[in-house]
Amino acid sequence: MANEAGYNVAVVGATGAVGEQMLKTLEDKDFPIKSIKLLSSKRSAGKKLSFKGEEVTVEEATPEAFEGIQLALFSAGGSVSKKLAPEAVKRGAVVVDNTSAYRMDEDVPLVVPEVNEEDVKNHKGIIANPNCSTIQMVVALEPVRQKYGLKKVIVSTYQAVSGAGLEAITEMKEQSRDILDGKEVTPEILPVGGDKKHYQIAYNAVPQIDLFQENGYTFEEMKMINETKKIMHMNSLEVAATCVRLPVETGHSESVYVEVENGGASAEEFKNTIAEGEGITLKDDPSQQEYPLAIDCVGLPDVFVGRIRRDLDRDNGYHMWVVSDNLVKGAAYNSVQIAESLDKLGLLK
Amino acid sequence: MANEAGYNVAVVGATGAVGEQMLKTLEDKDFPIKSIKLLSSKRSAGKKLSFKGEEVTVEEATPEAFEGIQLALFSAGGSVSKKLAPEAVKRGAVVVDNTSAYRMDEDVPLVVPEVNEEDVKNHKGIIANPNCSTIQMVVALEPVRQKYGLKKVIVSTYQAVSGAGLEAITEMKEQSRDILDGKEVTPEILPVGGDKKHYQIAYNAVPQIDLFQENGYTFEEMKMINETKKIMHMNSLEVAATCVRLPVETGHSESVYVEVENGGASAEEFKNTIAEGEGITLKDDPSQQEYPLAIDCVGLPDVFVGRIRRDLDRDNGYHMWVVSDNLVKGAAYNSVQIAESLDKLGLLK
Repeated sequence: MANEAGYNVAVVGATGAVGEQMLKTLEDKDFPIKSIKLLSSKRSAGKKLSFKGEEVTVEEATPEAFEGIQLALFSAGGSVSKKLAPEAVKRGAVVVDNTSAYRMDEDVPLVVPEVNEEDVKNHKGIIANPNCSTIQMVVALEPVRQKYGLKKVIVSTYQAVSGAGLEAITEMKEQSRDILDGKEVTPEILPVGGDKKHYQIAYNAVPQIDLFQENGYTFEEMKMINETKKIMHMNSLEVAATCVRLPVETGHSESVYVEVENGGASAEEFKNTIAEGEGITLKDDPSQQEYPLAIDCVGLPDVFVGRIRRDLDRDNGYHMWVVSDNLVKGAAYNSVQIAESLDKLGLLK
Repeated sequence: MANEAGYNVAVVGATGAVGEQMLKTLEDKDFPIKSIKLLSSKRSAGKKLSFKGEEVTVEEATPEAFEGIQLALFSAGGSVSKKLAPEAVKRGAVVVDNTSAYRMDEDVPLVVPEVNEEDVKNHKGIIANPNCSTIQMVVALEPVRQKYGLKKVIVSTYQAVSGAGLEAITEMKEQSRDILDGKEVTPEILPVGGDKKHYQIAYNAVPQIDLFQENGYTFEEMKMINETKKIMHMNSLEVAATCVRLPVETGHSESVYVEVENGGASAEEFKNTIAEGEGITLKDDPSQQEYPLAIDCVGLPDVFVGRIRRDLDRDNGYHMWVVSDNLVKGAAYNSVQIAESLDKLGLLK
């Protein structure tokens, strides 16, 4: 069903950290494109970006900009998606949205192709791309679920600043240098751009990503909890998360504890199961100090898993360390994979 | 029983990161000292350090150096303790050892005064100071154990480089600057000075602290597991740990999940229980973005706890974020507290 002629594609938020990766991924994967339109806020409109060797001028994202568009990849913040995704759909586009705006809507499939590709078939115009920290975890969990069944997941994250945008990267670097130079720093962005207080991220670990909810969890933590259940179609799966921002530029790491339904597998068997999972690279050899590191996964689409070991107390418990590029598999790459699934299944008209 | 005249005290490893804090803590706490002897390797002997405003020349640590010493605080690595602690004991000193050399010896009490002060009474010359990451966790767990009973603990750590010594701090800072300047870096120390491979710590998260054991856990992880059980006298307590080194200079953070015997307490009640714990400062107000941060705890002796919330699936499960200065409560301060306990209980002759 793949369309050889290619599609009219729009990228919304083209000038952002994820937008940049989105263009690179569309190029790298050679997604069938007939025309590309790069959209942004009024402020960034007029910028020129390169796509497949040609210069493309960024245009302001307006409802009319989606006329004739068949596929629109959104990554410009939740409020932009709320406002413009329905406009794109109204004009016939299928939207793959990388914000949290629609993720938990019942009518919107939330898709990680390695886990629930078939869900794209249920779309009503919008398909949501999950949160970066959720995506890499469910990719690692999927082969475990298939082989042993899942019961409980407890994750503590080690998340990179690029998840908070290009400005957060700049803030981290400037702070780092100022502190090395013995200067005072004035945090202005992290942990959350729109929140009341800001804290130093350089040489620190900040246990807040996104805003606090009524129940004491942050929104990032609730995203990991709720999105995991939705993607895996497991409402009764126990999931808990503690999300922490670190002075790492790109690459989220996660310490994951999992209890399976059918325990007893040795760490070796468990490793083999993980290694066979789609989209996973096993990097796990303690004798050679081999384990995934954030800096090693930058720019790569895989989810890297290591430090796999059995819990010493429960024979259905396992621990692992899961690392991936939050801008690639955690955002742009997964969005383009969803677009490929749509193409493959003949769902782009 | 406290000795007003003071004791003849030796500090072994006086020129190291912990040794420095040891001297500061002895000063700050005004521990009763008649004379102080600063000992180190032959290489550092001859250096001059300041103690209570006076210059003290560092001497080489030899067996004879312990003649007349009543209390010896060791923090110069396991091999030094293995060799010289028995020599100090032979000469009548009580040794408080901050290395892992004797921690799991049956004859050696492993003490965190807030948890098991009475254990110092069983000493046979040596008392061990637990691992930094263990100390802050058991301080936070103790009020939970007293009120609700403990069943299972799963911890993921966010540990500072100063735990690996002054050289590791220098390596992190130099790497940070080189990377900001776009230079190549050549890691030489972290994650473990004596191990085969070394990895970049700046702008990274490294899931290895200390050497790997046969079972796939690192020695740091096994220390947290075994020491927690020993300190709390709970062989059947379930404990699992994943230990991760971060580009933070000082201050370990820990994401702790705990299952208690008697569940049902609200997060608010649980917070109050923690707040009443000895040596703990509760810092937990999501509405004001109040939670403990590594950079805020530097130089302070307390264990800071925040992000307390109930597990959403198990009514006996709780999550919390535990932060403390790894060189203070995690090492020097706890060692001096042990010395104070010895003094208070009349165990220093």
